[in-house]
Amino acid sequence: MADPSRSMAAPAVILLSGGLDSATAAAVARSQGFALYAISYDYGQRHRVELEAARRVGESLGVLGHVTVPIDLRAFGSSALTADIGVPKDRSPDAMGEGIPITYVPARNTVFLSLALAYAEVHGAADLFIGVNAVDYSGYPDCRPEFIAAFEQMANLATKASVEGSLRFKIHTPLVELSKADIIRTGTRLGVDYGLTRSCYDPDSSGAACGHCDSCTLRLKGFAEAGLTDPAPYQS
Amino acid sequence: MADPSRSMAAPAVILLSGGLDSATAAAVARSQGFALYAISYDYGQRHRVELEAARRVGESLGVLGHVTVPIDLRAFGSSALTADIGVPKDRSPDAMGEGIPITYVPARNTVFLSLALAYAEVHGAADLFIGVNAVDYSGYPDCRPEFIAAFEQMANLATKASVEGSLRFKIHTPLVELSKADIIRTGTRLGVDYGLTRSCYDPDSSGAACGHCDSCTLRLKGFAEAGLTDPAPYQS
Repeated sequence: MADPSRSMAAPAVILLSGGLDSATAAAVARSQGFALYAISYDYGQRHRVELEAARRVGESLGVLGHVTVPIDLRAFGSSALTADIGVPKDRSPDAMGEGIPITYVPARNTVFLSLALAYAEVHGAADLFIGVNAVDYSGYPDCRPEFIAAFEQMANLATKASVEGSLRFKIHTPLVELSKADIIRTGTRLGVDYGLTRSCYDPDSSGAACGHCDSCTLRLKGFAEAGLTDPAPYQS
Repeated sequence: MADPSRSMAAPAVILLSGGLDSATAAAVARSQGFALYAISYDYGQRHRVELEAARRVGESLGVLGHVTVPIDLRAFGSSALTADIGVPKDRSPDAMGEGIPITYVPARNTVFLSLALAYAEVHGAADLFIGVNAVDYSGYPDCRPEFIAAFEQMANLATKASVEGSLRFKIHTPLVELSKADIIRTGTRLGVDYGLTRSCYDPDSSGAACGHCDSCTLRLKGFAEAGLTDPAPYQS
């Protein structure tokens, strides 16, 4: 028998990357009673591992729908987006914090949120959840609260649903002020299986993490500070 | 010999659909001395005619680059986007003005402008031109000045270039307050070849316009009011 409470839950769209942060943001949304619709983006990531992880994370959270949107920006100039730049290894978190990271993608969260907005309108979802964080690795301009607030204001002028008054969009950023350790504590409390998530910029073909790129460094530091062991696979 | 003035011109991104309005907006941008980079979107339009027209219009205006970005939103639900809905015929312009048109696409200009923003950042272009119009056929929420202003504000918080201060984005809407007749007069004065443009929602396989859909009705009324003949092909 279908769970009648599920059909009554308000729908929400969650941007799901396959990483630790978006899985946690999704779990927060679910804990608030939302019925989840997941959206992921295939923009030529170096590692399909991320999209496979996003799919597994969505399934584990019981999403009602999951779309993966192809975004092919190669024509913009390959160097600008997902180019074969070197992945820095073994940098301290302090060193990462200087300036805007070389992994920056032009207007990425603007593009991602715009597509999520369209998906939300289709499903009548007023609520969007995104796992941006402005504490660790804060160099991305489109992870800051002032960007999110401006996007939300724009969104409410952009769509038929918001202009006609049936939806008032809200962009939720439940992780924005949390440290990586607090994100991991939150997700663990909510039952997130971090063994399904992938964060590494340079995994091997099996999906095992390198343990040395900026993303691995921050992730491992977060688990250590939370007093937990990362269940995801690492290269031995 | 290359024209030295061209390399010194400031770059601008123009959203080019193949229709009359965006061709005119592009001509306005060129008349203001900008070097043009065009961006078009392949989102499953019923008629490839539009994209072919966009390509021709771009060439005629001497764009320095032209990208066509595929946007595949079929997974969102086909009915929501470019579905096989009937095309209304022979409606008066007054009747078209009631409510939001059935041809509305969720968050379309938000998605289009977001991708244009990424393209602009790649080319170091602070200026974006879009041929939105709030006079004729004004039911689209994402054609209104208040939406454009909110997008511009968001864009300036979104990107590395704007946050670091190297670019201050401006979204130009040179047609927003013009009637269709005034748009056509403006473009004609600037040398736009409207024979290259296509506006029809229901063209035949040769690209000839039906002459009876809302878009044709507005276009033909605009040419009539401007005292000009539309050079584009119509079905006999």
